[in-house]
Amino acid sequence: METQAYNHLLDVIQAIHPFDDEAAKLALKHSDSLTKPPGSLGKLEAVAAQLAGISGKLWPDLSRKAVIIMAGDHGVCEEGISAFPQAVTPQMVVNFLNGGAAVNVLARQAGAEVVCVDIGVIGHIEHERLVSRKIVRGTANMAKQAAMSRGDALDAILVGIEIVNEQINRGSRLFATGEMGIGNTTASAALTTVLTGLPPEESVGRGTGINEAGWMKKVEVVKRAIEVNGLHAAGADPIDVLAKVGGAEIAGLVGVIIGAAASGCPVVIDGYISSAAALVASRITEKTLPYMIASHQSQEQGHAKLLDAIGLTPMIQLDMRLGEGTGAVLAFHFIDAALLLMQEMATFESAGVTKG
Amino acid sequence: METQAYNHLLDVIQAIHPFDDEAAKLALKHSDSLTKPPGSLGKLEAVAAQLAGISGKLWPDLSRKAVIIMAGDHGVCEEGISAFPQAVTPQMVVNFLNGGAAVNVLARQAGAEVVCVDIGVIGHIEHERLVSRKIVRGTANMAKQAAMSRGDALDAILVGIEIVNEQINRGSRLFATGEMGIGNTTASAALTTVLTGLPPEESVGRGTGINEAGWMKKVEVVKRAIEVNGLHAAGADPIDVLAKVGGAEIAGLVGVIIGAAASGCPVVIDGYISSAAALVASRITEKTLPYMIASHQSQEQGHAKLLDAIGLTPMIQLDMRLGEGTGAVLAFHFIDAALLLMQEMATFESAGVTKG
Repeated sequence: METQAYNHLLDVIQAIHPFDDEAAKLALKHSDSLTKPPGSLGKLEAVAAQLAGISGKLWPDLSRKAVIIMAGDHGVCEEGISAFPQAVTPQMVVNFLNGGAAVNVLARQAGAEVVCVDIGVIGHIEHERLVSRKIVRGTANMAKQAAMSRGDALDAILVGIEIVNEQINRGSRLFATGEMGIGNTTASAALTTVLTGLPPEESVGRGTGINEAGWMKKVEVVKRAIEVNGLHAAGADPIDVLAKVGGAEIAGLVGVIIGAAASGCPVVIDGYISSAAALVASRITEKTLPYMIASHQSQEQGHAKLLDAIGLTPMIQLDMRLGEGTGAVLAFHFIDAALLLMQEMATFESAGVTKG
Repeated sequence: METQAYNHLLDVIQAIHPFDDEAAKLALKHSDSLTKPPGSLGKLEAVAAQLAGISGKLWPDLSRKAVIIMAGDHGVCEEGISAFPQAVTPQMVVNFLNGGAAVNVLARQAGAEVVCVDIGVIGHIEHERLVSRKIVRGTANMAKQAAMSRGDALDAILVGIEIVNEQINRGSRLFATGEMGIGNTTASAALTTVLTGLPPEESVGRGTGINEAGWMKKVEVVKRAIEVNGLHAAGADPIDVLAKVGGAEIAGLVGVIIGAAASGCPVVIDGYISSAAALVASRITEKTLPYMIASHQSQEQGHAKLLDAIGLTPMIQLDMRLGEGTGAVLAFHFIDAALLLMQEMATFESAGVTKG
């Protein structure tokens, strides 16, 4: 089974097209003909070129968008590393499904669909809009043992690929990563430390709002999880690391990123947890990197260095630290803006404006 | 005449209401009841509280918005400080009026009106949508004499107040500052240096794209303008500084900011030139400060320190350096987001989510 899942993953990775440098260059050339000093729209021009390189078109139609929220629980919560109780994971899932969370408000504003997937919540959630693909009933406590088996991690990745493909079949062409899972900044910090070498003192943040003592405990728990799971060696297999100190929702997002890339769709990366998933995806295959667009710089400690390690630069600086996909959905406005500028701006020639 | 204009300005300043701390506190209290960790929406929560403090309402209706673009020419262009010829000022004004510039595209996306005002362009512009309120036919070369008389500066401020009032009468409640004027980063650098003490080596940037030699000349021109106009003394009168090394469009934006504040409307500040106008407005009266919302961190050197000197923190990091109001209009999405979150998010109680 595990081999079959891995072979399936390799097939999907195989399908990822390389970035179309020629299309990106054409987009930049078009951008330089528009009535503005060359490069003066900054990252909006870079994003427009990236979207051209992804799609092979001067400006792809990305009007249908979705934020995919993967939800899962974390056994490491029994170490007391979060400011919120574990019961909040399913409660917030229901809130997403009823449209009352921050990400729902922002998705409605941006014209994006919210897809909420139970990939690893402990309890049973009954809701007509829930996408139920439970791989684990919460992970095990990574401070004592592996959070998941390698097989579970692979299955969770395949769920992400399946979910994004379903949305692509329904017409979506642009995705945002979202997540919910009390305890998942702890898992993300462990992943970041193992895969980038950033010390836990720099990768561990305050999450939903723990105090100094809580933070020190969280650092210690991350160190213990890495120790217990024997993850000191550099060059570790990213799927192995994901299984041992990750989470089902993080693995699901890895799948969303790989699946979107395989279908030629860009993925906007949200905050710390989503970025940890992006890091894992990029370590599984570098071919995913050109399909990623960073959104915001989270206030979670470690996020700046994590984005840097992946090679991403954020566009938004709102000091947010909520997750859910909120920062990524806000970036949809800028992606729309980049495409609209390409399509609607006058050229120096058409407007009769003198070039510098 | 000058005394009359000044008295009129003082009357408008007198009308600015102080910030409603109680309303802002109520907004933050409401925000803390919403299903998210307290403060986790970062600046979006701060903006929501600011808008409540400005309006006295938990969430004001700011659906009708406008970007006001003030256009003017600069005599200092004869020193060769810009990468673009002066003819581009009226050409771009026509581009704004025809809807082909970047700011038009972004304003359409954000549902904002574009109001373009000729307040100091050298030549005559004929266009049905142009708002013509010419105070000067370009400023004089500030490297040789005062750019404007104090009377002209005051008149230009009053034009800004008049224009924003017209838009308020037509229903707009949220404004963005925009500008066009080849040479106006030079004037803005001079204003920044005189009013904040930042050395010209740090306040002068590359504008529309000059090279190293051009930058060195621009620094020298700013130094000369300050010398020639005798603006070394600290505690200088801001209107005097504005007249001597500013510009008509900058003065117009000072008026937009003061006028909006006097009518209880928030103003989103764009990039370097708009921030220079915000600095002058804040020095004329600190009462304008609570009405200002910073938008983006421009790539123009000096902008970060200029915002810091005013006490503003940007939300957007797109490495833009175009002006026109483009960054401010992009921030409209975030202001809408802040208000929507306040209105539409479920509370812990309504959603049955456990508090941390």
